[in-house]
Amino acid sequence: MDTSSPAATQMAAEIAEQPEAARRTLDALLPQQARLRDLASGRRRVLLVARGSSDNAAIYGRYLLEVVAGVPAGLAAPSVATHYGARLDLSDTVVVSVSQSGATAEIVETQEWARACGAATVGVTNVEGSPLAGAADLALVTSAGPELAVPATKSYLTQLVALAVLADALGEGSLRAALERVPDAVEGLLRTDVDAAAEALATTERVVVSGRGMLLGTALETALKMEETCLRPVRGYSYADLRHGPISVVSEGLLAVLVGAAEGPLAEPMLDLVRDLHERGARVLGIGGTPAFAGECDLHLPGPDLPEAVEPIASVVPAQLMIEQMARRLGLDPDNPRGLRKVTQTDR
Amino acid sequence: MDTSSPAATQMAAEIAEQPEAARRTLDALLPQQARLRDLASGRRRVLLVARGSSDNAAIYGRYLLEVVAGVPAGLAAPSVATHYGARLDLSDTVVVSVSQSGATAEIVETQEWARACGAATVGVTNVEGSPLAGAADLALVTSAGPELAVPATKSYLTQLVALAVLADALGEGSLRAALERVPDAVEGLLRTDVDAAAEALATTERVVVSGRGMLLGTALETALKMEETCLRPVRGYSYADLRHGPISVVSEGLLAVLVGAAEGPLAEPMLDLVRDLHERGARVLGIGGTPAFAGECDLHLPGPDLPEAVEPIASVVPAQLMIEQMARRLGLDPDNPRGLRKVTQTDR
Repeated sequence: MDTSSPAATQMAAEIAEQPEAARRTLDALLPQQARLRDLASGRRRVLLVARGSSDNAAIYGRYLLEVVAGVPAGLAAPSVATHYGARLDLSDTVVVSVSQSGATAEIVETQEWARACGAATVGVTNVEGSPLAGAADLALVTSAGPELAVPATKSYLTQLVALAVLADALGEGSLRAALERVPDAVEGLLRTDVDAAAEALATTERVVVSGRGMLLGTALETALKMEETCLRPVRGYSYADLRHGPISVVSEGLLAVLVGAAEGPLAEPMLDLVRDLHERGARVLGIGGTPAFAGECDLHLPGPDLPEAVEPIASVVPAQLMIEQMARRLGLDPDNPRGLRKVTQTDR
Repeated sequence: MDTSSPAATQMAAEIAEQPEAARRTLDALLPQQARLRDLASGRRRVLLVARGSSDNAAIYGRYLLEVVAGVPAGLAAPSVATHYGARLDLSDTVVVSVSQSGATAEIVETQEWARACGAATVGVTNVEGSPLAGAADLALVTSAGPELAVPATKSYLTQLVALAVLADALGEGSLRAALERVPDAVEGLLRTDVDAAAEALATTERVVVSGRGMLLGTALETALKMEETCLRPVRGYSYADLRHGPISVVSEGLLAVLVGAAEGPLAEPMLDLVRDLHERGARVLGIGGTPAFAGECDLHLPGPDLPEAVEPIASVVPAQLMIEQMARRLGLDPDNPRGLRKVTQTDR
């Protein structure tokens, strides 16, 4: 099998475009920060609306808004809008809807509902002129360019950039310097050697992925991407949830992928988790984290050298590379997973 | 194997105590509704704090608060409090912390943090005088009685009762009549014949559980309980999330457990989901739902005859019975799953 060409698939080509996509997105969105501050003025909280990969991006956005910008934030339950038609007073809320296509009906409908409930609306989408962008008070259009592979890669990464630009605007500038280092960090990670990791994953039936806090979204996205692209049931967990019950299924033969933080309050606890998983007979494949964490893992892929708050934007890159190669090792076409379409409609 | 005795295990005995536990909890908590209304007066939203089974109860509470009481509600990310120590303005918020033991350190710590951020605090716990109850502005102590089996059953069901009492208080009485029918409905479901369902689950390797809206928490709790008690990796999904990617792993040999609503806006879409899963070769085990839904399922357990808003309090009963019997069929002790303790601490 040829695993040497970096652009053997559309997915691989789109992964490789990410440094430029991140740069273009920063250039396009940083000038919108003053408008974002105006829009949020007098409002007390943020409600994020998303599904699938965009939902994993929104989970990162939630931590960033609460921890870095000090703004209470949470995830919407779309059926409250689309099926129950609840009447909520959202006049104190900025609703941020995230959808690559900007055309997923339930997200567009939930944004309309939010506006009718009094919210200010921000649409994060990759498609200029999409229904979501057109109906939002302010559209943050990511500059990933057309994404042709079904698994989202560059559109996901640029959604993270957009949410960091938003948190930076509401938190008054504390992320700016770190954000400007992101495109180079993404570029550096494109050369990651993922052969051993892809081989281990392709030859293991039972895989879980875990992370926590800022990197929880990255862990969930890694699990979802593996599930979609490699047709394996892979569960992503906050490690706190993993400890709270599901750890009982961890045993010999399981491979745990752990996405670690290089710094911050959750860097150290990941080390305990590795030891706990080892005691139960599982192997651990680490991504990022501290040197001590890397040393405890059975396999390890380096993460970016970035502050914790923007680390997740780049940490997903080794995971993407590893999953793209894993799919090919399994004889699958990563660009067109069985049974999925690019624009997902929840009800048919 | 003897599967005839209803109290062969502590878990079975505690499942059977639930009608009385629900009655006692209603009697104890309904008189607190005026105090709940006073506490919430002038506050605009509810933030729920929980882990594990209590988190699944909180997810039900969230839908109920938004849909029935019209109060914006969401789930907290505990690490924002416990690890990042974010400073948020929660002066417009009632924080409801849910923990059976009232002693899980991260939940107690998050409640303290919420109070320091200006929130009014409500502790939902089964243990009078526990740290959570002691430190809350108002304690809703469920009357499940001591729970000795590690898998939460009667404590979970009474948490749902407590959250319905809360939503009823904030929504000004619209649930009261339905709530009073719950204990009898729970009692009626204790006689459910779960033999065929338990046999199908025990002999199938790949199982997923799905539901949506009001019944999403029930689906997630069914998956978590099966994972904890039967040591099988079982994933619970909102059916909307299932459609948004993971459905690609559904194929021949998979058994999907679907928890349906008997009425309401999500009753009908469940029928489409059954057909979609059948097309992909999966078998479907339904719990509750409409007669048409029951007719499409390969196996079916009846749900309660209750309005959708309180249906989840009773719908979990057939799932509990089925899981308790499934564990015994697998030669496991449902009372003491491998590697779990009754009071979980997230970090050690």
